[in-house]
Amino acid sequence: MCNATAADKQALEEGEALTPRFDVNGLVTAVVTDADDGTVLMLAHMNREALDLTMSTGIAHYYSRSRKQLWKKGETSGNLQTVTEARIDCDQDAIWLKVRVAGYSATCHTGRRSCFYRRIEATDHGPLLRLDESKPLFDPSNVYG
Amino acid sequence: MCNATAADKQALEEGEALTPRFDVNGLVTAVVTDADDGTVLMLAHMNREALDLTMSTGIAHYYSRSRKQLWKKGETSGNLQTVTEARIDCDQDAIWLKVRVAGYSATCHTGRRSCFYRRIEATDHGPLLRLDESKPLFDPSNVYG
Repeated sequence: MCNATAADKQALEEGEALTPRFDVNGLVTAVVTDADDGTVLMLAHMNREALDLTMSTGIAHYYSRSRKQLWKKGETSGNLQTVTEARIDCDQDAIWLKVRVAGYSATCHTGRRSCFYRRIEATDHGPLLRLDESKPLFDPSNVYG
Repeated sequence: MCNATAADKQALEEGEALTPRFDVNGLVTAVVTDADDGTVLMLAHMNREALDLTMSTGIAHYYSRSRKQLWKKGETSGNLQTVTEARIDCDQDAIWLKVRVAGYSATCHTGRRSCFYRRIEATDHGPLLRLDESKPLFDPSNVYG
């Protein structure tokens, strides 16, 4: 943004035009929350194609950095995400999707509802991870096996 | 993760050890929500120092990619973030902080409570951004000027 004019900044931050600032890999970050209770379900990435498909179909699409391909979330597991609202942040490099999850109502590949199933807790021995009470809602070895 | 053994994967996804998978720039992504109502306030990045300081002080610290330095969020504006809970995701490359915001209760540099103040709406002319009802809670030109 170093060379942006005041008008550029105004348009980016206050304007009506969707002009996502994709990074050097062509991606923006997406945070995905449950439309009903606001739980953060996952973080993922979108390229232009994924964002376009998400907006045109209402079903969340991402870009899988590990598989290097478009990723229609839930295509294998049945846990498709219907988008109830999409938002973009001030400098247009992050997307927030509110979704309803089909299938097992699970988002994490471990079978859990959310990928954020561990708290980071400060202890005398430094931070440690503590599992919360969430249990797998499906058996990943059956779904992905 | 291509070369990870099953034991590595088990430790990463189910273990107690905090082993963040910092990217090539030494960063993980952090999603920040309001501890009371779950609103997504911002997305940011943390290096190891920022994560360590966040866990040891209970005040959110990030790494500013534009300024290339540690960023104690709210140090200028007074909108410090007290962390009520920190979580990490399944593959330990994303952090979720639940926070209470001091000062003006604003997180965005535009003065608004959240950086996600625009909805992306599908229209006949393609997606357009619509401002929500949120108003600046402080005057950025006074705070940052």
